Amino acid sequence: MKISVAQLEIIAGHPDINVSKILLEIEKAKQNNVDIIVFSEMAVPGYLIGDEWENTAFIKDCFSYNEIIKNATEGIVAIWGNIDLDFNNKSEDGRIRKYNAAFIAQNGEYVKSRSNLADGKVYKTLMPKYREFDDERHFYSLQKYVQDYNMSLDYSINHYLLEDVILPFTIKINSEYKKIGIILCEDMWSDDYTINPIKILHKHDPDIIVNLSCSPWTWRKNNKRHSVVRERIKNNPTYFVYCNNTGIQNNGKNIFLFDGGSTIYNPDGSLLCVAKDYTEETKTAILYDYYHYNPPYTNIPNPEINEENDKKELFDGLVYGIRNFFKNLPNKKVVIGLSGGVDSALDAVLLVEALGAENVYAVNMPSKFNSNTTKDAAMILAKNIGIHYAILGIQTSVDNTINDIEKTVFFNYSNNCETGLTLSKLNLENIQARDRGSRVLSGIASALGAVFTNNGNKTETAFGYATLYGDINGAIAPIADLYKHEVYALAKYYNELKGKEIIPSSIFEIVASAELSEDQNVDEGKGDPINYPYHDKLVRAFVEFRLDPEDILRLYSEGKLAETILCDKKIIDKYSVENFILDLEQKWKAYKLSFFKRIQAPPIIAVSRRAFGFDLRESQNGIYFTQEYFKLRNKLLYEKNNMGLF
Amino acid sequence: MKISVAQLEIIAGHPDINVSKILLEIEKAKQNNVDIIVFSEMAVPGYLIGDEWENTAFIKDCFSYNEIIKNATEGIVAIWGNIDLDFNNKSEDGRIRKYNAAFIAQNGEYVKSRSNLADGKVYKTLMPKYREFDDERHFYSLQKYVQDYNMSLDYSINHYLLEDVILPFTIKINSEYKKIGIILCEDMWSDDYTINPIKILHKHDPDIIVNLSCSPWTWRKNNKRHSVVRERIKNNPTYFVYCNNTGIQNNGKNIFLFDGGSTIYNPDGSLLCVAKDYTEETKTAILYDYYHYNPPYTNIPNPEINEENDKKELFDGLVYGIRNFFKNLPNKKVVIGLSGGVDSALDAVLLVEALGAENVYAVNMPSKFNSNTTKDAAMILAKNIGIHYAILGIQTSVDNTINDIEKTVFFNYSNNCETGLTLSKLNLENIQARDRGSRVLSGIASALGAVFTNNGNKTETAFGYATLYGDINGAIAPIADLYKHEVYALAKYYNELKGKEIIPSSIFEIVASAELSEDQNVDEGKGDPINYPYHDKLVRAFVEFRLDPEDILRLYSEGKLAETILCDKKIIDKYSVENFILDLEQKWKAYKLSFFKRIQAPPIIAVSRRAFGFDLRESQNGIYFTQEYFKLRNKLLYEKNNMGLF
Repeated sequence: MKISVAQLEIIAGHPDINVSKILLEIEKAKQNNVDIIVFSEMAVPGYLIGDEWENTAFIKDCFSYNEIIKNATEGIVAIWGNIDLDFNNKSEDGRIRKYNAAFIAQNGEYVKSRSNLADGKVYKTLMPKYREFDDERHFYSLQKYVQDYNMSLDYSINHYLLEDVILPFTIKINSEYKKIGIILCEDMWSDDYTINPIKILHKHDPDIIVNLSCSPWTWRKNNKRHSVVRERIKNNPTYFVYCNNTGIQNNGKNIFLFDGGSTIYNPDGSLLCVAKDYTEETKTAILYDYYHYNPPYTNIPNPEINEENDKKELFDGLVYGIRNFFKNLPNKKVVIGLSGGVDSALDAVLLVEALGAENVYAVNMPSKFNSNTTKDAAMILAKNIGIHYAILGIQTSVDNTINDIEKTVFFNYSNNCETGLTLSKLNLENIQARDRGSRVLSGIASALGAVFTNNGNKTETAFGYATLYGDINGAIAPIADLYKHEVYALAKYYNELKGKEIIPSSIFEIVASAELSEDQNVDEGKGDPINYPYHDKLVRAFVEFRLDPEDILRLYSEGKLAETILCDKKIIDKYSVENFILDLEQKWKAYKLSFFKRIQAPPIIAVSRRAFGFDLRESQNGIYFTQEYFKLRNKLLYEKNNMGLF
Repeated sequence: MKISVAQLEIIAGHPDINVSKILLEIEKAKQNNVDIIVFSEMAVPGYLIGDEWENTAFIKDCFSYNEIIKNATEGIVAIWGNIDLDFNNKSEDGRIRKYNAAFIAQNGEYVKSRSNLADGKVYKTLMPKYREFDDERHFYSLQKYVQDYNMSLDYSINHYLLEDVILPFTIKINSEYKKIGIILCEDMWSDDYTINPIKILHKHDPDIIVNLSCSPWTWRKNNKRHSVVRERIKNNPTYFVYCNNTGIQNNGKNIFLFDGGSTIYNPDGSLLCVAKDYTEETKTAILYDYYHYNPPYTNIPNPEINEENDKKELFDGLVYGIRNFFKNLPNKKVVIGLSGGVDSALDAVLLVEALGAENVYAVNMPSKFNSNTTKDAAMILAKNIGIHYAILGIQTSVDNTINDIEKTVFFNYSNNCETGLTLSKLNLENIQARDRGSRVLSGIASALGAVFTNNGNKTETAFGYATLYGDINGAIAPIADLYKHEVYALAKYYNELKGKEIIPSSIFEIVASAELSEDQNVDEGKGDPINYPYHDKLVRAFVEFRLDPEDILRLYSEGKLAETILCDKKIIDKYSVENFILDLEQKWKAYKLSFFKRIQAPPIIAVSRRAFGFDLRESQNGIYFTQEYFKLRNKLLYEKNNMGLF
């Protein structure tokens, strides 16, 4: 039995493009005498389309393509993901009932169903609803289908169970009957659910289990997936086919990377074939009857897990994300503020890799606080990567703005009094940032018909260490899901990759600094008020591990903080108890209160376990410390003070 | 039986504050010899707290307050909403299992359960997951509870149904036994679900049904609720107690208004008592045995439904929303750009009503394109409402920026060529907008330690007729969920309310215009490229009615468009077929493509059936027209051309 896995670059919201690709792959597969071709989950509409699932005309349009694909299956079996519509029943939002479905057709007909589901249809059983996933918002689950069906039955009749609808299809290929179990994405990742769809399928001894996925890249996910598949088929050896799409999909605030990684697993869990990451590729393999063909199978080695590969995956993913994001824009030109710091340096090289040096326009925008060190570094980098480069000083404009504001007088029409304005040091810093972002970069980008990037990292983003409309702006934030130490690591990785010092060494040597005042003079070693080696980890603890200050303080008091948040213990031990608590509270406040800035921040490429944006849903609710937090805090300070007494 | 409904202003994310209010109300109720006191859904944690439901320390903290409230019920029955935690089971996201629950306690003990649920607990059955609601994301539903329980049972045993867990509690009050059915919010709004919790409760003839809600204000919702309650108890007359909270809650992009409207309904559905909108108030009533006390009950008339009341509700809601939003800020000062147009005029009077004139700082920022008409109107308005007023011209700064950009030369380090920049007319308009927003308003607001408002309306927001970092910025967008005609209506309403021309008549007389170029000269009657009387309705059709261009074109070709989108037919008929189609496509494109601006737009007070932001989830997926759209379009153009031949 010859099977093809078609790993396509799916364009969300464009069923016309996706279906033309699907049809072409089916034709190619027929010419190649393939018996079964598999496409990914939601291969027709795409997956991240926001509330466009509520657009009836659009979903009917997507649904109508099922007929076209089905009719193209003369002489072949095709399995594809699309939306299924039940026009006779409502969803719980009062709209047409929709299922996240897989379809299977052969010779122009849907394959017969063995349950009370319509022919050729499978519905997703497990509905992810964490992070960016909103399946329950739009799709009816198989559980609800069964529940409703039972409600229509007489009480005395034996009620349906999920076991009665999760069944393999039987297809005839080369005069042999084969049982194919089909599941959708999350159905495989069942550890946290009380239902295990694969276990149910195993009761019927399928020859193949096919998983249609639309699954974004996350750190070391592919190896995790290999283990999960092996675990699932360990006691019931079965060929396992995993089909994922490539491309990027977004929900506005976040851009997700779909790496593909489509894999055919041998019944012993080894890898029969794996499609290339971030590449449209159809992999074809011949599957033998497991009972008549003993291992060793053709198999390829597991990818090695190490930090070098991690960096490569991350870097390649970001480049792919940027390149694909710009495909949707009128042109590939991009403007970037190049400060001579490491964040903009990394963004610049990512842009060059993604779009070509000819499309990158860098602007250095010094005020009187910018050092020659960083100005020189910016220019050298621009030269090294061969981009367009300009210098536009902002001091005159900033001085004019300061003057304009300080001479402004408000007349109070209630009491005929006047109020003048004075600018604080922080105000003066923000004026510089806004002059750069909203005056210079925005102006230059629009003159070029281009967009500009946001160069913030995740640690700054978490603490709001940035200025709204200043450096919080731009069309895309390529590295806002990287902690500062990851920014350094990828910048170094790039130099290693190129075998020379593309990013000048001075950028790695100076202290991280916004250079917005005398207090941030890099030549004097003065920089950001962030202790990155610890605060990077603290942000990750808050955002990804979902820890509260209470947890941090408990771990701290138990001496387990460093190992839990993967931080060097010496860095934490440098804080006195009082300073540790003070810092923790300041940082928690900064993280919580700065959400007002993130509301207006640009789209972030999501690469961590939790990215700011739609992935991490926040509210402007101020600060809260739990009752337990205060107990722990008082105990720690009391103990400390008591110790002081002895 | 004496019952109190405590309508409290709940502060999301601050259980300490909420519980102190709850305990105080319980004490007051005891002194008042009340038998039962009812609080709202999620009265302890609040409801819109984003993914803070994943913060284990926080939710344990909220959960721990149950014990404190329970212990305060000596001599009284209390019913309150809070989170329930099941530490022994995981949710489907792998975290602690959480329920959106109601609790009932009497004399310091949880009231005995009649099902296999723990004593004193009720779980929400129907989980809203549309608009801003994300219940399925965080909470386990009662359906899943039943499903899991059944999976633990032997197949031969009679399985549990929802009927076995949706049961009233029996409490003893004044030596009489009373049956109290408790449901949560959506459980009452069951029309689109296959389960009707109230119907299940009715099987046990409860004396009272209590609905704990956390339900935001929407247009004419209270009257809709009255009808729903009447429908639910029509065949089973029962006292019905609806408890909702006041306050505002947000999910970043949207601010929702909680009007309260807590009501005790007589068994015949008439209103026994109703708490004041947007007011912390505890209503107390004596409920008599329905079978021994015949109507007429004490009852108050239904609120009248008319446009005047609609405008009052909308205006009062916006003022309440603004006032509450500023409670969370360091101070109540606010800066507003006052252009002399109707949008900023309405925002200014809303700010004055919400915060007092002494806190409002208006700035008029003319360029050479601003007319004396609007400049005068701005000043007269400022005078009329007695606010602080300043004028800061932007022409010099704008000219400097134009000069800075036009003299910028990019040096290309790849080929040693240079590139200059030229600014288009649109670029020049955007430079003015950004100078106002990101230089002047941001600078002045920060000097005052204040924030500034966004004055955009919904129609502009839909089409992206605004400049990022220009007029798309500010801490809050009070009127971005109002169509242009609603802005005019509320502005007029304000003058009527005050009985004089506070907002000068010139503001109503001039054409709506951005005044960013000669082409937008208001004195020559030139304004925005938006035909508001039609486009207001088109935006509503897209955003609230969820119609696609296919639907619009079908309705148009059937002659039903005007009546469906509630637009004056004459306005639509002014377009030729070609121009109608051209405009439709342009506007659909503008709506879809301008989402990149909304990603970075400030929080909007949600007052419509669908507000931009978290309420309407969008993706940056470009434009798509369905296959049916093209058929309709070709048919219309063909018919038209054919007709032209005769």
